[in-house]
Amino acid sequence: MGRIDARMAELGLELPPPWTPRGRFAPFRRDGRLVFLSGQICEWGGEVTLRGPVGEGRVAPEEARRAARICALNLLYCLRLACDGDLDRVGAVLRLGGFVNCVPGFPLSPFVVDGATDVFIDLFGEAGVHARTAVGVAGLPGDAAVEVDAIVSLKEG
Amino acid sequence: MGRIDARMAELGLELPPPWTPRGRFAPFRRDGRLVFLSGQICEWGGEVTLRGPVGEGRVAPEEARRAARICALNLLYCLRLACDGDLDRVGAVLRLGGFVNCVPGFPLSPFVVDGATDVFIDLFGEAGVHARTAVGVAGLPGDAAVEVDAIVSLKEG
Amino acid sequence: MGRIDARMAELGLELPPPWTPRGRFAPFRRDGRLVFLSGQICEWGGEVTLRGPVGEGRVAPEEARRAARICALNLLYCLRLACDGDLDRVGAVLRLGGFVNCVPGFPLSPFVVDGATDVFIDLFGEAGVHARTAVGVAGLPGDAAVEVDAIVSLKEG
Repeated sequence: MGRIDARMAELGLELPPPWTPRGRFAPFRRDGRLVFLSGQICEWGGEVTLRGPVGEGRVAPEEARRAARICALNLLYCLRLACDGDLDRVGAVLRLGGFVNCVPGFPLSPFVVDGATDVFIDLFGEAGVHARTAVGVAGLPGDAAVEVDAIVSLKEG
Repeated sequence: MGRIDARMAELGLELPPPWTPRGRFAPFRRDGRLVFLSGQICEWGGEVTLRGPVGEGRVAPEEARRAARICALNLLYCLRLACDGDLDRVGAVLRLGGFVNCVPGFPLSPFVVDGATDVFIDLFGEAGVHARTAVGVAGLPGDAAVEVDAIVSLKEG
Repeated sequence: MGRIDARMAELGLELPPPWTPRGRFAPFRRDGRLVFLSGQICEWGGEVTLRGPVGEGRVAPEEARRAARICALNLLYCLRLACDGDLDRVGAVLRLGGFVNCVPGFPLSPFVVDGATDVFIDLFGEAGVHARTAVGVAGLPGDAAVEVDAIVSLKEG
């Protein structure tokens, strides 16, 4: 068992069951050491776990933050495929893009997307610290409350 | 005539006439083998071909999907410039970012953006398969219905 | 004093005072020569300088364009950290992502984001010319009117 797999077990992080993408894209694409991960919504076993919009009078930011955590687990599932099953090959999580399906003017997208950020930092430590952009959007696939994508680099060799 | 140009003719794909960018940015920027392509809206000869918002009671998703195809042709025009006219130098389409100008809660951005994805996969085959993020947004340049950007890598040498 | 620092002084560009990020992310992440810069909103000394939404009957595009300039100065502050203080190491500004917190259907995101583009081109010249994607979104951190992120490459060595 790899170091990161052991850390996942220690943190109680469970990867999702496989799911069918909602379009004709790939879960990831590698170019040398760079891995581009497709946007992942908060879904589990093909079911959207939380729908939008997030914000005043609708879905609470705390709930959406938990949904962002699910997006991160889906990203980890895809990242593992990109690493041929060995997450110890991850060198650095370079960037997350976070999208919150929200009411107009919702100001707390960073609070929500921290739910995904926490997973990467807790799991990879310093290697999981990333640049990030978090915005609120008008709609997401399947009306999901949150979507997150990522760019990751692998270790040499 | 290159292999990809021949394939374009076979598929009946026509590149757009040149157009004026709506801001002070470049159509692409290369760094080594990596090409960053600017977001392209559905415009042809300087005219927006379809305006938003997409979704219930407004523009139909099927129409927007055809508009996403136009975005892809505009991206191909710029990609060709980045390859000094030779699309056979494309190594891999790494990532598409798709933005749909939509009504709040529109759930079908992946269906719409597949209109662009199809062009890249039909044209480049396995090299055209990409990671992707598709979201719905509140507004796009010129009130266009769809905008798509891309990151592509070229072959060595 | 470096060449770019001298140019900054000549242009009268002032970098912001340090601020606290609104989430658990890093201001930038480097991988070899590539630098991924986190999204920066229009804030100065921890205060949002302009709130959304931008568009008809609300915030004027010209005001938002000035706010985009502040986003660019915040990005420059972070880019300087990524260069260990020496902006002369910047090789190319590859890509900007611009997000405008807007009313539905706002068509002028490119005009607004040009406020950030201008800073990079005026400062770095040809090296500052970049690919770009500009969209209108439903919400931004702290209800800021504009957010911009960037990917930059450094010179070899």
